[in-house]
Amino acid sequence: MPQQIPQIADGVRKMGAQFDPNRLADLTGDPMGAVVSLGGCTASFVSPDGLIATNHHCAFGAIQYNSTPQRDLITNGFLAKTREEELPSGPGQHVYVTTKIEDVTARITGDAKLAKMTDAARQKAIERKQNELVMECEKPGGVRCRVASFFEGSQYLRITQLDLNDVRLVYAPANGVGDFGGDIDNFEWPRHAGDFSFLRAYVNGQPYHPAHWLKVSAEGMNDGDFVLVAGYPGRTFRYKTADEVKNYQDFIYPTSIRYFTELINILDAQGKGKRDIQIRNASRVKSLNNSLKNFQSTNEGFVKDHIWEARVAREKAMVAADPSAAAILEQIAQTNETVRKTQARDTIITWIAGTQGATGFMYRSSPMLSSAMSVVRLAEERPKKDLDRDAGYHDRDFSRIKENAERWQRVMEPGSDRAGLQYFLGELQKAGGESDPVVKFVASNGGIDKFLDWLYANTKIGEKDERLKMLGETEKQLTARNDSMLQFASVLLPAVEEMDARENAASGAMARIRPAYFESLRKVSGGNLYPDANGTLRITFGKLEGYKPKDATWLTSQTTLNGLLEKETGKEPFDSPKNLLAAARDPKKTAPYTDPELHAVPIDFLSTCDTTGGNSGSPTLNAKGELCGLLFDGNYESIDADFLFNPAMTRSIHVDSVYMLWVLEVDGGQNLIREMGLTPRM
Amino acid sequence: MPQQIPQIADGVRKMGAQFDPNRLADLTGDPMGAVVSLGGCTASFVSPDGLIATNHHCAFGAIQYNSTPQRDLITNGFLAKTREEELPSGPGQHVYVTTKIEDVTARITGDAKLAKMTDAARQKAIERKQNELVMECEKPGGVRCRVASFFEGSQYLRITQLDLNDVRLVYAPANGVGDFGGDIDNFEWPRHAGDFSFLRAYVNGQPYHPAHWLKVSAEGMNDGDFVLVAGYPGRTFRYKTADEVKNYQDFIYPTSIRYFTELINILDAQGKGKRDIQIRNASRVKSLNNSLKNFQSTNEGFVKDHIWEARVAREKAMVAADPSAAAILEQIAQTNETVRKTQARDTIITWIAGTQGATGFMYRSSPMLSSAMSVVRLAEERPKKDLDRDAGYHDRDFSRIKENAERWQRVMEPGSDRAGLQYFLGELQKAGGESDPVVKFVASNGGIDKFLDWLYANTKIGEKDERLKMLGETEKQLTARNDSMLQFASVLLPAVEEMDARENAASGAMARIRPAYFESLRKVSGGNLYPDANGTLRITFGKLEGYKPKDATWLTSQTTLNGLLEKETGKEPFDSPKNLLAAARDPKKTAPYTDPELHAVPIDFLSTCDTTGGNSGSPTLNAKGELCGLLFDGNYESIDADFLFNPAMTRSIHVDSVYMLWVLEVDGGQNLIREMGLTPRM
Repeated sequence: MPQQIPQIADGVRKMGAQFDPNRLADLTGDPMGAVVSLGGCTASFVSPDGLIATNHHCAFGAIQYNSTPQRDLITNGFLAKTREEELPSGPGQHVYVTTKIEDVTARITGDAKLAKMTDAARQKAIERKQNELVMECEKPGGVRCRVASFFEGSQYLRITQLDLNDVRLVYAPANGVGDFGGDIDNFEWPRHAGDFSFLRAYVNGQPYHPAHWLKVSAEGMNDGDFVLVAGYPGRTFRYKTADEVKNYQDFIYPTSIRYFTELINILDAQGKGKRDIQIRNASRVKSLNNSLKNFQSTNEGFVKDHIWEARVAREKAMVAADPSAAAILEQIAQTNETVRKTQARDTIITWIAGTQGATGFMYRSSPMLSSAMSVVRLAEERPKKDLDRDAGYHDRDFSRIKENAERWQRVMEPGSDRAGLQYFLGELQKAGGESDPVVKFVASNGGIDKFLDWLYANTKIGEKDERLKMLGETEKQLTARNDSMLQFASVLLPAVEEMDARENAASGAMARIRPAYFESLRKVSGGNLYPDANGTLRITFGKLEGYKPKDATWLTSQTTLNGLLEKETGKEPFDSPKNLLAAARDPKKTAPYTDPELHAVPIDFLSTCDTTGGNSGSPTLNAKGELCGLLFDGNYESIDADFLFNPAMTRSIHVDSVYMLWVLEVDGGQNLIREMGLTPRM
Repeated sequence: MPQQIPQIADGVRKMGAQFDPNRLADLTGDPMGAVVSLGGCTASFVSPDGLIATNHHCAFGAIQYNSTPQRDLITNGFLAKTREEELPSGPGQHVYVTTKIEDVTARITGDAKLAKMTDAARQKAIERKQNELVMECEKPGGVRCRVASFFEGSQYLRITQLDLNDVRLVYAPANGVGDFGGDIDNFEWPRHAGDFSFLRAYVNGQPYHPAHWLKVSAEGMNDGDFVLVAGYPGRTFRYKTADEVKNYQDFIYPTSIRYFTELINILDAQGKGKRDIQIRNASRVKSLNNSLKNFQSTNEGFVKDHIWEARVAREKAMVAADPSAAAILEQIAQTNETVRKTQARDTIITWIAGTQGATGFMYRSSPMLSSAMSVVRLAEERPKKDLDRDAGYHDRDFSRIKENAERWQRVMEPGSDRAGLQYFLGELQKAGGESDPVVKFVASNGGIDKFLDWLYANTKIGEKDERLKMLGETEKQLTARNDSMLQFASVLLPAVEEMDARENAASGAMARIRPAYFESLRKVSGGNLYPDANGTLRITFGKLEGYKPKDATWLTSQTTLNGLLEKETGKEPFDSPKNLLAAARDPKKTAPYTDPELHAVPIDFLSTCDTTGGNSGSPTLNAKGELCGLLFDGNYESIDADFLFNPAMTRSIHVDSVYMLWVLEVDGGQNLIREMGLTPRM
């Protein structure tokens, strides 16, 4: 955590930092003030006029939003030569600038009454206190707050962010550059993707002027060079217990892998030969493929890296150092047991507001059903006092809910929606059994196929204007609509709420047990303990370094244009645009950015930094604190690092800023080169 | 060539040789006197009692010969603890010790009359002179001679060899060691195969005592260490013209790849679920897979390494230095044209005596038809004066023909035979057309299926005793047999002979043109020119060195037991025997052979030596001239080196002698360790 940097400043200097590491603890200073969240990705300001560098795959939603079969920005890329040509990123694209972090643990868990409550009541009380802390903090004009839990409820920090919601697309390379290698190369090294794009933040129709922006380095990197990554890693599981790891290994990962695979196959089949459906499904397929490979690697990692065995060993050490740990671990295991009995069904129907990623597979397969759930849940929550509502349904969430509802118009495709839902209704039948109320409802409507005929023939959820209207309606108004998709959501809702109640009780129990677990863990860890990733701003230090994935094989830390030409086939996903290929083969155009050690234009590099999903787009800084690249992936061997970090094998993958500049010049983006304070070389 | 070593002795010393390189020119001295040919593979004496080290895949015929479903030496390996337990290698297993090399060019091409002959007559005259030279040289008691052509007819050398034909199997590791990685790892690096076995030569029932044998090193190798390989490389194409390379690229390679693939599929289908058929077909499938991968890599190499373009450039340089080269190249191209018109058909029906590998695909698919061709051709040639017979049918070939006929009993399997022949008769129909006499004969017998019914129901060629009898019969006796397979061979024969006549005329023309081509080539090559490989004894120098197969990837030069354990799956082809796995995981058993730099037991290593097929089993000598490994393969990138050598990518693959000793000890072969003058360490 940035706050922990002063404790390790000497170490960071020894690693090679040529600036004062203590500067990194100042989130509103230089350089941390330039690092922003896109909500799910990281980005950074690189000019005084609000120019933002992030990954191509983080800007993909904005690129897709502006793409049509006639004007295919995914395939062809995009460059705004002037501010006027910059394109809206679509609803839902935000830039969050972190402005303050405060420790609010005492205000949440300091209340003596909490100890006397039932687990369910305690959970409710903690959520209410978090809501209060958020509400008192948020202000009009885009000041957004959240309370984040660290060490699983041991510590709470309130993070204040400035929310900029007018974000425009400035530059995106062709998909053959930004996603060169596609799903084949995803999570792989050696890599040759130019995974970067530029956005710009606007306020009141004018470019936003950030207090700090990063200087982009054109110097290039060499093996062994110091780097740091600042960003918003999403989630890690390094403090899950052996019992919990076992359930991930035995149930969650195998089941999710099966479901990701099925859903990808279904969407691929729907899009076959139909470019318009392919475009509609593109970002979902991309994200599903990404998740699938991630889950597969971790699944292999459980066995290969003996993760469960490592947890068992850690817990043995804990118990040896602190005999009371045995009881704590036992309580955690018992609490988990209360929610595991129905997990085969719950994996399909879980509904977590606002998270397309973590929610049940039924909604991932059907954006239409997901929208209906949003509508029905919101109608249920809205009459309550704001403070008492469940997470995701507060007043401040409304605009985001509306934005999602608008944005989803682009990914809704009734044929794909129905095909996916058909599969998961079948799975629900198997997992829930005949007595399950949702299964019963489907059966009473003539079985899956007839039910789906009815479901898709009698709903207006797919119509944007109707859907937006629904979001403002009461339960009574919704009922009067006689809309099939809303009716199905109403049948699902009690099942979901029954499940949520059990989950809440379990969370309340954990809030009681987990702090003791971390205290015990600290006794055997010695020294600094960093919390699991939770979407808050973090810093990781490392250097450019290769690794040995297997016997007699050493992967070096940098790739070049020569390697891209070796991979080039002219066929997706190894299909670079013609202008890039011509430039790559033209010594006059490669010379200005040729690295003297590599004798070629660098593309990507590996570092030993410790990153995960959410870090995508993170600025990578060199020893001078200048932007020398953007993190965009980890190697295959790193994926299970979410559970267990292995210094010999875990590597982050970055696009080199030198390559960003070269590609930009090849595409005629000299205006942006100048805006970043650099001089074009071509 | 060994004779050329004195010219480069200083260079060899500079590379690291600690012995006098001039010693290598003495073929009957130390160490070259210990290097022997197995006919298709290389081997070496490693004890005064005739113990021979070679590759597992070179001894595979002997292992297979002694294997039955009940006593499966392929799967389980074999160790003779005493001389009495050593097993006969089967007919056809020879060891050839080179004893003399003489230049006989003048005696062959010095005759002024040759220049006045037609091309066909010249070819016949040259063959006759070669025959004479062989006959005057060969002596009873196993003195065998051959005349080999160097620089495609520019130079002729007579090689005298001692032929030892009582060869016994002494030790073979389990297939899971000797062929660990199987066809998946074939031609690949990193590699973990223990591709070695031990044979022993006998004379008059007693172990043969060679004049020289190699000292086996237990010291181990390190990256950068000097090595040399002495062996019998089979064939390279480095002096083929651009016109010839183009035909390899456009016709020969694509066609052969298609045929290898079909034949492998056919044999696999036949063996499915039937272990006895699998064992019968095993060595053929193995050899076909090897050829397939070889051809595929070269086929890719034509494009990737721009081989044709390199030849065009070389020929431009030749013409620039020597304008007469243009006419020479044109004559070569015209001569090639005379045999290319019918090559689609000829690829199927070509009959080259004694070469199962280079002969037409019809005979490769059908060992029974191949046997019938042998019988019919021999009956035709036998009545002629020995000197006038075609190559392969001289008196001295009779014993080898008989041995092959015996040996083939093991690989004959009528079901597989028929299935393969069925496919190639179909191909012949397409390539030859209706007017082709062979196609006509099949059609007149009711078409392919009915013809095959008749062919396999009315032949005794599959019966060993009958087949051996046939080899001694006259044409008249054979006709009287009314044997279907012999009848079919008699129909094939005129077609084959018509083709041979054209080939002979072309060869005669080449004998006239090619020496001028090499003279011209010498002018632009400057300095030493080595001849293409032709199955004669050669030496190549190099060092242990990794390589960069692609961007950001460096493959290091040595593999270890740790890498084997990483690859181990328990399933073929990654299924090491249990005793080896147990030993690999037992520090007490690995410690005695652990390399201090690698911190593990070494398995295989890469070198920069220039080798090809036929070099398999070649002793690899270290700077002291001791055996430090056996060559057994090249990397994938090296395969097209038969056409063009690329120092950055071409690597030979060797099994480390340290691994040979370790495996031998694990298998209880301490008797052999002692015989090699070493002390067991376990």
